[in-house]
Amino acid sequence: MTVIEPTEDDASRLDLDRGVLAVPGLRGAGVAAGLKPSGSPDVALLVADEPRPAAAVFTRNRVAAAPVQLSRTRIESQPWVKTVVVNAGNANALTGARGLEDARAMLERADALAGGPSLVLSTGVIGHPLPMDRVLPGIDAAAAALSEDADDAFAQAILTTDTTTKRAFVTLELPGWPDPVRVGGTAKGSGMIHPDMATMLGFVATDAPLAPAMMREILVHAVDRSFHRISVDGDTSTNDAVVLLGGRADPERGIPSGPAVDQVADAITAVCRSLAHQILLDGEGMTRMLELEVVGATTEAQASAVGRAVATSSLVKTALAGGDPNWGRILAAAGNAGVDVDPNTLSLAIEGHLVVRNGEPLSVDDDALRAAVQGKAVRATLDLGQGSCSVRWSTTDLTHGYVTINAEYTT
Amino acid sequence: MTVIEPTEDDASRLDLDRGVLAVPGLRGAGVAAGLKPSGSPDVALLVADEPRPAAAVFTRNRVAAAPVQLSRTRIESQPWVKTVVVNAGNANALTGARGLEDARAMLERADALAGGPSLVLSTGVIGHPLPMDRVLPGIDAAAAALSEDADDAFAQAILTTDTTTKRAFVTLELPGWPDPVRVGGTAKGSGMIHPDMATMLGFVATDAPLAPAMMREILVHAVDRSFHRISVDGDTSTNDAVVLLGGRADPERGIPSGPAVDQVADAITAVCRSLAHQILLDGEGMTRMLELEVVGATTEAQASAVGRAVATSSLVKTALAGGDPNWGRILAAAGNAGVDVDPNTLSLAIEGHLVVRNGEPLSVDDDALRAAVQGKAVRATLDLGQGSCSVRWSTTDLTHGYVTINAEYTT
Repeated sequence: MTVIEPTEDDASRLDLDRGVLAVPGLRGAGVAAGLKPSGSPDVALLVADEPRPAAAVFTRNRVAAAPVQLSRTRIESQPWVKTVVVNAGNANALTGARGLEDARAMLERADALAGGPSLVLSTGVIGHPLPMDRVLPGIDAAAAALSEDADDAFAQAILTTDTTTKRAFVTLELPGWPDPVRVGGTAKGSGMIHPDMATMLGFVATDAPLAPAMMREILVHAVDRSFHRISVDGDTSTNDAVVLLGGRADPERGIPSGPAVDQVADAITAVCRSLAHQILLDGEGMTRMLELEVVGATTEAQASAVGRAVATSSLVKTALAGGDPNWGRILAAAGNAGVDVDPNTLSLAIEGHLVVRNGEPLSVDDDALRAAVQGKAVRATLDLGQGSCSVRWSTTDLTHGYVTINAEYTT
Repeated sequence: MTVIEPTEDDASRLDLDRGVLAVPGLRGAGVAAGLKPSGSPDVALLVADEPRPAAAVFTRNRVAAAPVQLSRTRIESQPWVKTVVVNAGNANALTGARGLEDARAMLERADALAGGPSLVLSTGVIGHPLPMDRVLPGIDAAAAALSEDADDAFAQAILTTDTTTKRAFVTLELPGWPDPVRVGGTAKGSGMIHPDMATMLGFVATDAPLAPAMMREILVHAVDRSFHRISVDGDTSTNDAVVLLGGRADPERGIPSGPAVDQVADAITAVCRSLAHQILLDGEGMTRMLELEVVGATTEAQASAVGRAVATSSLVKTALAGGDPNWGRILAAAGNAGVDVDPNTLSLAIEGHLVVRNGEPLSVDDDALRAAVQGKAVRATLDLGQGSCSVRWSTTDLTHGYVTINAEYTT
């Protein structure tokens, strides 16, 4: 698979007003079942006309929520999905044996009403048992409301404290393939930062027929370059999951191959990257974003480790909040990445101002540099000076708003 | 060496008004050389009557400051130290080739004036060259002012944004050893949290004669159980260092052995632990501390990884700031530790309230639990339910004060 990093061009070709349910062959629903105190929609269904090749990526947190445990087992045993049932308002995490029973009951209801194989996902408050007397009627109501025109209803019903829906959609013409294909995605997430809200979910679908064996590789590739390269506070939730549904192969036409598959994979990556960006923009407390290119690494893993260390550094994130072009914090954080970083080959540019070359600080115009980091997004390039691999990481600032939301919220 | 975790008893036997220079055989000085804008003392010397067996532990940050690079090389080649020269106000970090020349010049001046082998350490602002026209006269003035009565002057001169000196001292009677011996330590550090201030230094000495070969083991043991088990913001500075000076052996009397060495080692650990505690208490923005015991681990490394994950979680630290007994965040952070954690064997008690047993949430009196976490220190015990190893980690809360200091400070 060609590795093509999505770029600013994504913005011009993606439609952010349509999401996963704009892909043909899917129906959905979002209904209010009374799980959220606000009374807004909180139970959602995503149903394919027929079972589709599928892949999913789940949180690496060992304290995975009950629905994650069940869904992971299901999709590992059969990589096909017809139905996904989701609830918001309660994460069904850290809920013990009862949590597993409740998640299983949700799965069985979805299987019975919309057809399996199903997956179940939950998002919301941690550590409280699900009110099943509301959840199961909610699934019933959602099944009764299934529609091809539910893209917005689905996107709304999976939100927790998000202030906006997150969607991205693109139509592709593939080389050697007669019809246009679509890739659409819908996500929720306030960037891991809301108290007890656990936390990001993503649903991506395409009608491009894909070989089941390729699905996981395509999804891991996309997630590694999108959701795994953003950080709000370094915590990984108990409920994170991204599900990809592919198109079914038509026996007469086969499936796209070669460069056509690469294009679909790249579009899936672009959709995931846009959704990740939308999650960062909606992070509570966020006022400014750092977009860091780590270049000159010997491996992508090394570059990503450095990017992660910078993106999760509280000192970097508070400097970002203050509009302080404090480049020493970026280099110091890079030195903490746990990978080989040589101070004598490090170079750093902030908004085009080269501040360090091969470990030697350069004299810069402090006022111009400070003025350059006052915008909504700050771009920096950190060159490790060792090789030719690069990655991009994005992070939000650490603000009073973040502290207020997370310290003063009470369950 | 017996592993004895220091306990609250430390507080009763430690004298916090005396530090490293209260140990016989050492002289010191702290003078104002004009490196700190405040004009307070900023160049310090610590000089032993004769070279002493020594060990040092340095930052693991790959972007180590110039003085750390030089001192590490020196002590690795000869584990004996007669003189330590320190400056505050400027970290000599990320200063390139000039930084190494400047650190070397400081070493040579200390060697010439007070006798080597010397070490050099710096703390303060990152990324600015040292004003050597002030530093070298400062070393001259410090050498001229050397005194046995400089414990406070030394402790003051190594501070940056600390609001108080950090000292701890204890006198021991050793089994089978005729004279009392002393262990004293002095540290600086605002817990890694001050902008550009890099960051903690510790100096510990004893007049107990110790075999040079034991020094490093004793220091690593002490540091692993003190400075390496506190977190303010998870960043590791470019300048952290802890230096231990032992007593010289008298050829006629030999050195203490067996349980006597264990007692000295335990006292060194207790002094380091007290200094670490004092650093946390002086962390800017800090209003509340979490003291977490991780128990039931199969190895100490596993327990420490879990402790670190909890202690560095922004969600845990903001909940602590808000006095919110949000136990789900502690378990979720534990699940992110990257070690084997089984949700079904986790138990958690907060201030004596058992909130989760073997992964099952228990019904607790929410009001009583909330009242229990309003104090200056919150104690929690997290049982992994796997083995018998335990560690203690301490962390501060993440507050508006932290954000203000780190976002609004400008260099």
